[in-house]
Amino acid sequence: MRVYLDCLPCFLRQALEAARAATEDEDIHRKVINSVAGMIPQFSLGLRPPEIAQQGYQLIYQITGNSDPFHQAKVEANRVALALYPHLKEVVANSEDPLLMACKLAIAGNSIDFAPDFDYGGINNLVETALAFQLAIDDYKEFRNSINNSRYILYLGDNAGEIVFDRVLIEELRQVRELEIDFVVRERPIINDATVEDAIAVGMDKVARIVSSGCDAPATILSQCSSEMLRLYHSADVIIAKGQGNYESLDEESGNIFFLLRAKCPIVARLLGVSVGDAVLRALSAQRSLPAA
Amino acid sequence: MRVYLDCLPCFLRQALEAARAATEDEDIHRKVINSVAGMIPQFSLGLRPPEIAQQGYQLIYQITGNSDPFHQAKVEANRVALALYPHLKEVVANSEDPLLMACKLAIAGNSIDFAPDFDYGGINNLVETALAFQLAIDDYKEFRNSINNSRYILYLGDNAGEIVFDRVLIEELRQVRELEIDFVVRERPIINDATVEDAIAVGMDKVARIVSSGCDAPATILSQCSSEMLRLYHSADVIIAKGQGNYESLDEESGNIFFLLRAKCPIVARLLGVSVGDAVLRALSAQRSLPAA
Repeated sequence: MRVYLDCLPCFLRQALEAARAATEDEDIHRKVINSVAGMIPQFSLGLRPPEIAQQGYQLIYQITGNSDPFHQAKVEANRVALALYPHLKEVVANSEDPLLMACKLAIAGNSIDFAPDFDYGGINNLVETALAFQLAIDDYKEFRNSINNSRYILYLGDNAGEIVFDRVLIEELRQVRELEIDFVVRERPIINDATVEDAIAVGMDKVARIVSSGCDAPATILSQCSSEMLRLYHSADVIIAKGQGNYESLDEESGNIFFLLRAKCPIVARLLGVSVGDAVLRALSAQRSLPAA
Repeated sequence: MRVYLDCLPCFLRQALEAARAATEDEDIHRKVINSVAGMIPQFSLGLRPPEIAQQGYQLIYQITGNSDPFHQAKVEANRVALALYPHLKEVVANSEDPLLMACKLAIAGNSIDFAPDFDYGGINNLVETALAFQLAIDDYKEFRNSINNSRYILYLGDNAGEIVFDRVLIEELRQVRELEIDFVVRERPIINDATVEDAIAVGMDKVARIVSSGCDAPATILSQCSSEMLRLYHSADVIIAKGQGNYESLDEESGNIFFLLRAKCPIVARLLGVSVGDAVLRALSAQRSLPAA
């Protein structure tokens, strides 16, 4: 998807939050607001929203002198989610369809996102959230069929904390059949997106090979990815893409992609034909009529 | 209150909504976003939020060539609220404390506001909203005492549609005792704020004298008001100030002011020590410890 005008005020709000996370100096907060406001006329509407975030956060990090303002929050999210891990495993094991439950938990985990103006009630509530989910877009059957016919899965992660939920889904995928699975993280810290450090912190290396995309946008912008990442992308039988950022960057690409996300902003929700807060498991390839945006 | 940095992205969002209300031309929407973004570094944080809105909307109206983009929406809000008028009267008449009920309805009516990012569920739901209200700040006793000792009330209106609810409160005030009441409107259209035209459309002239403040901010900026308005302001026994805009412009002034409003943004809610959506009847003069902002 391409940038909507609505993304611009939303991004200015995010910039202020990032500035506040980076420093307590209010003069710097004002400087960030002014500088990002000054970028707005230059942003091309042909960009994808995470490309704007990428440009904007680079400027914010430069002004604040803090290139990872959400570091402590990410560490904390990993810690809290990891403490939940035994409970997640138990919920999956006790469910009628463990793979479906693991998908729902992975989607619930996608709530942990510092960018949108979306209050999800804290990590410890996410199991209840998942248990209450009815998938607003439900391509689970196609997903399960695809997995049954796959050997190699490329799993595109999104946020710190969320990756514990992803680990549970990956472990569940391995129950379905023998699979080669790579877990993709961002090249450098941006917002609260997961990097190699985060993935290792939650033990992802025990269940998948961790790969950096080579791209430091909060998304998977293929034109910015490493050649190794592109090779994996094009050889994957199934691509699992978590979160809005990966959706915003890949919805116009090709591939056997399944988007697992929680709709957290009105624009993405409208594009998907769902409501803010809804859980989505969507096959890119599925034919469906979407409402006009 | 003075502008918070949080007000700036919020105002950029409002600018886009106003641009869309003014014209369908998306190039003009982009021009508005760019121009208002360009104003942001110039805004002094010493201003009150409605002063920023005033400057910004003037620019928006200039760019779009439409100086009253919400005109039709205002006419419609007045029409829908007026259709509710008999029901409002009935609810007040059947309540244990009709003046309190009329205050709650007037606060519920303040939900009709196109500026904040606040979904109130439509005018026809506002009676139920009012019936469910517990006042989060409840200076009703002081209010009632003040009215009992007053002869002249200056009532500062806020939005179209809402003024039907204000009319009901004014009629109820007249049940308490013989009062002289002036109802103040904005000098010119801004957002969905009520002007003389709106007040007449809902029959306000039957229950009060309609006075323009002389100010075209979505608020009562005393330094911009007419000398006649200032004379009324300083001679009033009680000033009833409706809505966030009037609160934002008068909270540092003096006078026997009662603010009746629904908190519709996180900043105002935090300043008042309440939650977004809460109903507030607050005496300016009352001594209370407010939380740090």
